[in-house]
Amino acid sequence: MSTQGELLAWVVRPPVQRTPTLAPPGVDSSQSRFNGIFSARVLRILVCKVSRIHTKIAPCFHRLLSLADELSEGFMSNDNDLMQLLADKATRLRIHSINSTTEAGSGHPTSCMSAADVVATLFFHVMRYDPQNAKHPNNDRFILSKGHAAPLLYAAWAEAGIVTPQQLLSLRRIDSDLEGHPTPRLKWVDVATGSLGQGLSAGVGMALNAQRLDKLDYRTYVLMGDGETAEGGVWEAAALAAYYKLDNLVGIVDVNRLGQSQATMYGADGEAYAKKFGGFGWHPIVIDGHNLEQIIAAFAEAQARKGQPTAIIALTKKGKGVSFLEDKEGWHGKPLRKGEEVEKALRELPLSGASRPVTIAKPSPTTHANTVRKPVAVPEYKIGEPVATREAYGTALTKVGAANPAVVAMDGDTKNSTFAEKFMKAYPDRFFEGFIAEQNLVGFSVGLSKCGKVPFASTFGDFFGRAMDHLRMGAISMANIKCVGSHCGVSIGEDGPSQMALEDLAMFRAMPNAVVLYPSDAVSTERLVALAVEHEGMVYIRTSRPKNPVLYPNEETFEIGGSKTLRSSPNDRLTVVSAGVTIAEAMKACDLLAKEGIAIRVLDAYSVKPIDAKGLLTAAAQTNGTLVVVEEHYFEGGLGDAVLNAVANNGVQVFKMAVQEIPRSGKPEELLERYGLSASRIVKRVKELV
Amino acid sequence: MSTQGELLAWVVRPPVQRTPTLAPPGVDSSQSRFNGIFSARVLRILVCKVSRIHTKIAPCFHRLLSLADELSEGFMSNDNDLMQLLADKATRLRIHSINSTTEAGSGHPTSCMSAADVVATLFFHVMRYDPQNAKHPNNDRFILSKGHAAPLLYAAWAEAGIVTPQQLLSLRRIDSDLEGHPTPRLKWVDVATGSLGQGLSAGVGMALNAQRLDKLDYRTYVLMGDGETAEGGVWEAAALAAYYKLDNLVGIVDVNRLGQSQATMYGADGEAYAKKFGGFGWHPIVIDGHNLEQIIAAFAEAQARKGQPTAIIALTKKGKGVSFLEDKEGWHGKPLRKGEEVEKALRELPLSGASRPVTIAKPSPTTHANTVRKPVAVPEYKIGEPVATREAYGTALTKVGAANPAVVAMDGDTKNSTFAEKFMKAYPDRFFEGFIAEQNLVGFSVGLSKCGKVPFASTFGDFFGRAMDHLRMGAISMANIKCVGSHCGVSIGEDGPSQMALEDLAMFRAMPNAVVLYPSDAVSTERLVALAVEHEGMVYIRTSRPKNPVLYPNEETFEIGGSKTLRSSPNDRLTVVSAGVTIAEAMKACDLLAKEGIAIRVLDAYSVKPIDAKGLLTAAAQTNGTLVVVEEHYFEGGLGDAVLNAVANNGVQVFKMAVQEIPRSGKPEELLERYGLSASRIVKRVKELV
Repeated sequence: MSTQGELLAWVVRPPVQRTPTLAPPGVDSSQSRFNGIFSARVLRILVCKVSRIHTKIAPCFHRLLSLADELSEGFMSNDNDLMQLLADKATRLRIHSINSTTEAGSGHPTSCMSAADVVATLFFHVMRYDPQNAKHPNNDRFILSKGHAAPLLYAAWAEAGIVTPQQLLSLRRIDSDLEGHPTPRLKWVDVATGSLGQGLSAGVGMALNAQRLDKLDYRTYVLMGDGETAEGGVWEAAALAAYYKLDNLVGIVDVNRLGQSQATMYGADGEAYAKKFGGFGWHPIVIDGHNLEQIIAAFAEAQARKGQPTAIIALTKKGKGVSFLEDKEGWHGKPLRKGEEVEKALRELPLSGASRPVTIAKPSPTTHANTVRKPVAVPEYKIGEPVATREAYGTALTKVGAANPAVVAMDGDTKNSTFAEKFMKAYPDRFFEGFIAEQNLVGFSVGLSKCGKVPFASTFGDFFGRAMDHLRMGAISMANIKCVGSHCGVSIGEDGPSQMALEDLAMFRAMPNAVVLYPSDAVSTERLVALAVEHEGMVYIRTSRPKNPVLYPNEETFEIGGSKTLRSSPNDRLTVVSAGVTIAEAMKACDLLAKEGIAIRVLDAYSVKPIDAKGLLTAAAQTNGTLVVVEEHYFEGGLGDAVLNAVANNGVQVFKMAVQEIPRSGKPEELLERYGLSASRIVKRVKELV
Repeated sequence: MSTQGELLAWVVRPPVQRTPTLAPPGVDSSQSRFNGIFSARVLRILVCKVSRIHTKIAPCFHRLLSLADELSEGFMSNDNDLMQLLADKATRLRIHSINSTTEAGSGHPTSCMSAADVVATLFFHVMRYDPQNAKHPNNDRFILSKGHAAPLLYAAWAEAGIVTPQQLLSLRRIDSDLEGHPTPRLKWVDVATGSLGQGLSAGVGMALNAQRLDKLDYRTYVLMGDGETAEGGVWEAAALAAYYKLDNLVGIVDVNRLGQSQATMYGADGEAYAKKFGGFGWHPIVIDGHNLEQIIAAFAEAQARKGQPTAIIALTKKGKGVSFLEDKEGWHGKPLRKGEEVEKALRELPLSGASRPVTIAKPSPTTHANTVRKPVAVPEYKIGEPVATREAYGTALTKVGAANPAVVAMDGDTKNSTFAEKFMKAYPDRFFEGFIAEQNLVGFSVGLSKCGKVPFASTFGDFFGRAMDHLRMGAISMANIKCVGSHCGVSIGEDGPSQMALEDLAMFRAMPNAVVLYPSDAVSTERLVALAVEHEGMVYIRTSRPKNPVLYPNEETFEIGGSKTLRSSPNDRLTVVSAGVTIAEAMKACDLLAKEGIAIRVLDAYSVKPIDAKGLLTAAAQTNGTLVVVEEHYFEGGLGDAVLNAVANNGVQVFKMAVQEIPRSGKPEELLERYGLSASRIVKRVKELV
């Protein structure tokens, strides 16, 4: 809670720079007399509010109050103008939301209407942004986490002059980018939303960027639905936001009481939400989400709050403004019918008739961030030297970090296993501990990527499954994130199946446009990490726990979509395709078979997606059309399936060696043997086939 | 917090039945004088504790206290015996944990040592269970959510006579079921743990079963690590537990301060955890987790607490009991070295020398639950009638619910879209609203499945991605759960890509031993739901949003691993393999092509895993060895890959038609056309191929 000192500081030094304005065009808003009235008004509400909580400031309460009244008195008529303007804006947002969803024949008008007053206040009074420049680095950020209220967002843009009112009526049409839920096909959308409970994580990333990396004064606002706060990802984000003291982050919960299929868990009990956010270290404020004064005061209070994020719990009514929709069940995701139904609703949404231009506060100018890049230091290994790819990842990450100031890293309390800690030690200011919370780990990486950073998020490969839906939304968000999963497969040994990534390739391969890399030695790891930085988009890099011999000379180069032939002869009877630690098994098998006069080729398929179809077909053509794929993954969805697809309809025989049951604890070599991935098992299989 | 009335009720009517005992063998524990001392002791602590909080009970505080003292005075020596016994048990658990991990050469001894006092108290004083009968329906349940402390759990079993001390030394060996993290290969383990933050959800399922379904008085205890409470899934479970007022559920957080790679988010700040659980509606109690009196009192307080679950925040030291391990960094997941290091540690863990047999309180007897089954009502549709498979699912679920009392259902606030609401209306007592929290939705389903229930969990197919890691652990847990995902593919229309399941088949196919079903009409939906009930294990059923014509007569039968030929002639040029709404497109294409004299076969591959390899090969053999797979899924990991695998190395050509980019909003038919899945696109592709 605020201290007396903080409050006095607020009085003495009102945040002129940040106070939103209604100054006429051409008047510098920071010096406008309009600031006075709003600051004063807000101050009065704030003084009342804080005094209720802090008995210590009681003595100066009346003095503060009369100061506030004095400040505001002369400007009262202008204040009323503001209220009228915002009320009109909110009404216009409601009208747009109704009209566009009716025109579309689907959508969620009532979910828009509950949040219209909050959004009107944010877009036309609180936030600073340049409507001409969606990518201004110091624009305040707005994330519509309750993505089904997209028509409300589009309506706010229309009122800000970003889209035309006519465009709003193209909502949800196949030829329109105004989709049912926002996607970054629209340049004002940073992250796609619609899978609920993810916006706050993205917001954490953006707020971290402002606070720790770019040192900018933009603020981040995340509008959530009440129902979506049941998602655990919200609380992962909330905990981390409080841990990092993100006072530049505001979460707004639109408590409209009604979920999709029934009332939410807490109905209209705002205190229940306040207790949760308070318990997670946030500053909660419960307000009437349709009272503009309270909304304005809450945002001001949030801005004044230092050292912790603020949650504004806005008590609202779904369908607010139209009597037959307001707080009624059965109207979720339901547009109004054209004709009488819409007309009846619109009659209940009158505008004041007064028309005044609104001036949106501009973002502060920014200094140019350091983007000077240097070449990535080359690998420094000796052929045959035993190095785990996970350890090489730590080295690689530090090298790309040295070369590119945009590279940042985060980990889920596994940094001593993934070796992300090497980066942390070298660049502590660019490392973020995400703790054991993988949804948020991916979510705030997505947010950072939307601020021009190149985030490398690491944890055990299987724990990325925790974030599958965040990854899916990250893909739709066209996020430039790199995920690095260690501890793949049975070769992790004694820890057992709960720690073994055996389905991670299936997951990442199914992510649209994702690149999936799977290095087999330290040199390729370093090279692939460097390639991942240069590739714009989602990349997954799969690393292994055991130490494996270095296979490649330091100067070897790699490419996304490539492969390497590690062993070959003119007499190869078939090709073993593999990656990771099983490459070493394949090479051992090759040596053992050679002693028996059976030559085989070994192909390192380090790029699982895109896979080197041409290389595979060439190898197959030269080795009796036969490929044996060996992988530490379940049978479904891994490298084997990538190979099957690559060579389909070319007459190539593909035999898969993969894990076909739930493994157990044991020594790595015992498990490779038991689950059919060891050199001896490869030898056996090859002999069956040749 | 407790009210005065509750406290007095506790004094007047001590919970004799539940008080754990140390009565000598043969003495009925419920009448034993030993109950008196512990009740009195506990009462004293409780009185002190509650009085601190509730000033209202101050007037009777001293009266209550002297009553407690009076009660306990005469039994003090026996009380000391209990403390000594539990202290010895805790020491033995620490010794076992050290010895077994040292013998294994890996593991987490220090994470065991912090929780040894809590576990000793639980297993030998608080919990009621039959060591001879792991599956007694009224055993108290214990879930080691911090699965890496497995050696501690196994040690407790050894002390309870369930395994031998010698077996403990087989820890983590490939020939031992005492794995690195607990799995249900051990009959005392209900759910596999090791992926952190999942145990509480399973506990919610078990507690719900006791409270709402089987009406049993067993209690459920979930031991969590402090680090794992960063996982959002914990808070999804916490919220639902409070919502359902699960006062038979106790969560214990072992706050040993140190995570894997650094201190946890809150270090040793127990109040931070108390605020979080308190904010989520739990009754939090912060204790010294090494003080047996406080531990005993906390469990008693939890038991007395009505209407809400209790969180015991146990402040502990990692490595407790051994000076060079205690509260030290660098000892996570690290066994002691054989020889001097172990010996030095063991010298610090002396036993009292006093030896007394411990009597574990038995569970109450249970009455036989209703397990009478009836035949499932047959489908009642007309061929050609338009019915969405999601709607048929609701009907099917209600029918299997009528036939089998073990069937229960839960949904993530989408029940009006998935049609689970039909079941809710018919069987409200067997339906659980899970709200928008899919990790917990799956997690508590797993818990319920371990109580003999057959849970059907439903939400949109893509949102199951939220629970991928819970599903993975569910598979390792051999959980008998059925997941039903609606809204697959682009045919959902205007809501856009965030709501379209396009990677769900890849995920579920990669789950070991999972069955994946994908019905194309209402009749097959009903039949497949009935088959899912009979199949022991994880089943995924994928349903569609649009209405499609009924294809099969009501008496048609189906099988897991089967397929159906919908169109065939002797002249078929190729076979189109599909499922879901694209089957209708395939049939339309068949008709269109027939007009041009091109005959094609249409195969309904309703069983995606296992897939009907024989059926596919037969179809291919009869249709020029050519299969065209059409599916509403991304290119990777879906039906197409299942088909590719099924026919691999048989000379069959497989051409996949799947979604190859991130789709957008639009009308269903427009999207099917745009993304290449419509009848006209199938016609075009077939013409290219024949």
